[in-house]
Amino acid sequence: MTITITAFETSPDRGRGLARDMGVRWALEEVGQPYDVRLVTFETMKQPAHLAIQPFGQIPTYEESGLALFESGAIILHIAERHGGLLPQDGDARARAIAWMFAAVATIEPPIVERSMAMLFEKDESWFAARQAMLDQRLGRKLDALAARLGEGEWLDDAFSAGDLLVINVLRRLGPSGFLNGYPALTAYVARGEARPAFQRAFAAQLAVFVAASGG
Amino acid sequence: MTITITAFETSPDRGRGLARDMGVRWALEEVGQPYDVRLVTFETMKQPAHLAIQPFGQIPTYEESGLALFESGAIILHIAERHGGLLPQDGDARARAIAWMFAAVATIEPPIVERSMAMLFEKDESWFAARQAMLDQRLGRKLDALAARLGEGEWLDDAFSAGDLLVINVLRRLGPSGFLNGYPALTAYVARGEARPAFQRAFAAQLAVFVAASGG
Repeated sequence: MTITITAFETSPDRGRGLARDMGVRWALEEVGQPYDVRLVTFETMKQPAHLAIQPFGQIPTYEESGLALFESGAIILHIAERHGGLLPQDGDARARAIAWMFAAVATIEPPIVERSMAMLFEKDESWFAARQAMLDQRLGRKLDALAARLGEGEWLDDAFSAGDLLVINVLRRLGPSGFLNGYPALTAYVARGEARPAFQRAFAAQLAVFVAASGG
Repeated sequence: MTITITAFETSPDRGRGLARDMGVRWALEEVGQPYDVRLVTFETMKQPAHLAIQPFGQIPTYEESGLALFESGAIILHIAERHGGLLPQDGDARARAIAWMFAAVATIEPPIVERSMAMLFEKDESWFAARQAMLDQRLGRKLDALAARLGEGEWLDDAFSAGDLLVINVLRRLGPSGFLNGYPALTAYVARGEARPAFQRAFAAQLAVFVAASGG
C-alpha cells in the first residue's frame, strides 16, 4: 500500500515546518510508515484535480488505495487508528487523546491563526495595534488554560499520543512570534515534541523540499 | 450506564439551539441514547469542578461511568463509535465522514465564529465595517467551496453521518445573520438536517431549559 500526501512545492514558511503537512509527516514517522509526496503550488491546489480530494483547495491530503482524505486532524486520526503508537489501547484514554486532537484544531488553533492572519494582512491598518491587544488576550486565555492542565506533566495524559502531536504542532505556529516565551511549561512541552526522532525526520523531509525548490 | 452532559442554565442564544450542547444532544437523539443534563452558569463553568473536566471552561462536557470528555467534535465521535447510525460501516466511508467532522470544527466554524465575535465585540469600533467586508469574503470562500462539494446531493457523502451533523450544526450559527441566504443549496441542506426527528427532539430539549430558566 502506497501512501501519498500533498505539500507545498514552495512553502510560505520557508521550510520551518509550520505548514499543515508537518503534522501528517510527523504522525507517519511516529508509526514508521513510508510515504510519497506530491507537491502542489498555490495555483495547482485551486484546480479541479486537487479540489476533488480537498474541497477547500488546501494541503495536506492523504491518499492510499482508493481512499482520499483531507483535514490534517482526520488524516492523523486515520493513521493512528491503522497503526500502533499514537493512541492508547484503553478505550477511555483513547477517547481522551481524541478530545485533545479536536481541542488542538478547534479550540487552540483558531486564535493562533486569527492572530497570524492579522499580522499578515492587517499590519498596515489603522486598527492593527488596538485589535492585536484583544487577540493577544483571547489567545492568552487559551494558553493559560492549556498550561494549567499540563501542569508539570510530560504529556497531556500519560503517554505521548496523537493528542500531544496535534497540540504541539499547533503551538509551533506561535514560534516565530515569541508569544510562547511567556509560557515556560508550554515551551518545554513543545521542545519535548520537537526532540522526538520522528519529529526530526519529518522536519528534515519538509525542509528538504523547500531547499530543493529554492535551488539550494 | 448514565450519560450526563453539561449545558448553559441560561444560554446566551435564548434557546435557539446555537450553543455547543446542541450537536451533542442531536447526536444522542440520533442514536437513541437517553441522557441527563447538568446546567452550568458563566460563573460555575470557570470553577475548579468544571475545569477538571473541561480545561477551557466551556460547555459541553460528556460523562459516563469513569470517563469525562470535552470538545463537541470528540464527544460526537465517541457517541458515533459506541452506537450505530452516525458513521458508515465501510472503513473508507467512515474515514471520509470523520474528515467532514474535522472540517466542520477546524475549517468551516472558525471564520463563522470570528465573524460573530466581531459582531458582538467590535460593532462600535472604528474599524468594524472595513474588517467585516474582509471577514465576509473569507467566510464566503469557505461556503462557496462547501456548496460546490455538496452540489445537488442530499448529504455530503451517501447517507447522513456525523459529518453532516457537525457541518449543519456549525452552519446553523449563521442563521440569525442571514449570511446563508446567498447559498440556497446550503440553506436547503441545513433545513434537511433540522427536519430530522432527532434534531427536533434535541432542539425542544434545549429550548425547554431556556424557557424554564427564564421563568416561562
